[in-house]
Amino acid sequence: MTTDRLSTTLAALADPTRRAILARLAIGEATVNELAKPFDMSLQAVSKHLKMLERGGLITRTRQAQSRPCRIEPKALRDIHDWLNEYRRLWDDSLDRLDGYLKQLQSGENDDGKK
Amino acid sequence: MTTDRLSTTLAALADPTRRAILARLAIGEATVNELAKPFDMSLQAVSKHLKMLERGGLITRTRQAQSRPCRIEPKALRDIHDWLNEYRRLWDDSLDRLDGYLKQLQSGENDDGKK
Repeated sequence: MTTDRLSTTLAALADPTRRAILARLAIGEATVNELAKPFDMSLQAVSKHLKMLERGGLITRTRQAQSRPCRIEPKALRDIHDWLNEYRRLWDDSLDRLDGYLKQLQSGENDDGKK
Repeated sequence: MTTDRLSTTLAALADPTRRAILARLAIGEATVNELAKPFDMSLQAVSKHLKMLERGGLITRTRQAQSRPCRIEPKALRDIHDWLNEYRRLWDDSLDRLDGYLKQLQSGENDDGKK
């Protein structure tokens, strides 16, 4: 059902371990072994997560070296960011309303102070 | 496993129909009936999707009216946006590198033109 790219990317991110792996890869490339250690996970479990991230376009794995280090692919993250930007006015609006309300409260307080 | 809020929100968004429902709700509140029509879906199917969106904190449903209209909750979207911002330097960097490369190419072409 959810075969479109954005859905696959979002599904890949919908897991705290995969987001933690991504945060580690944001610092630099890492092999499966290097990723397994800090997460205290089996190589098999890490590989499964990497496959999901790869399918979501969030990482690529080098074919050259035998260790096949993983690299983060920021474009997939940017695509979600761009998609979210279409909703930005909604939360900007609600912040504006809150801001207006707070200013109104504050000016009310100042008025009281003047009395 | 994926019980944290960000994961639940991302999972709710990992479906094109649910993102389409959200796009509709960005325009204004709508009842299940109003949502079912354009999507040509059963009320039951729409309700299932709405439950996922509700669980992800992306919508709320009014308890007052019997029609229980749905409203978009932009905060959940902003939370993902904020989380993605931590990765922003990664795609900014890659854009900078591409920009530098294109400028380099262009200056090379200009040099050729001068010959």
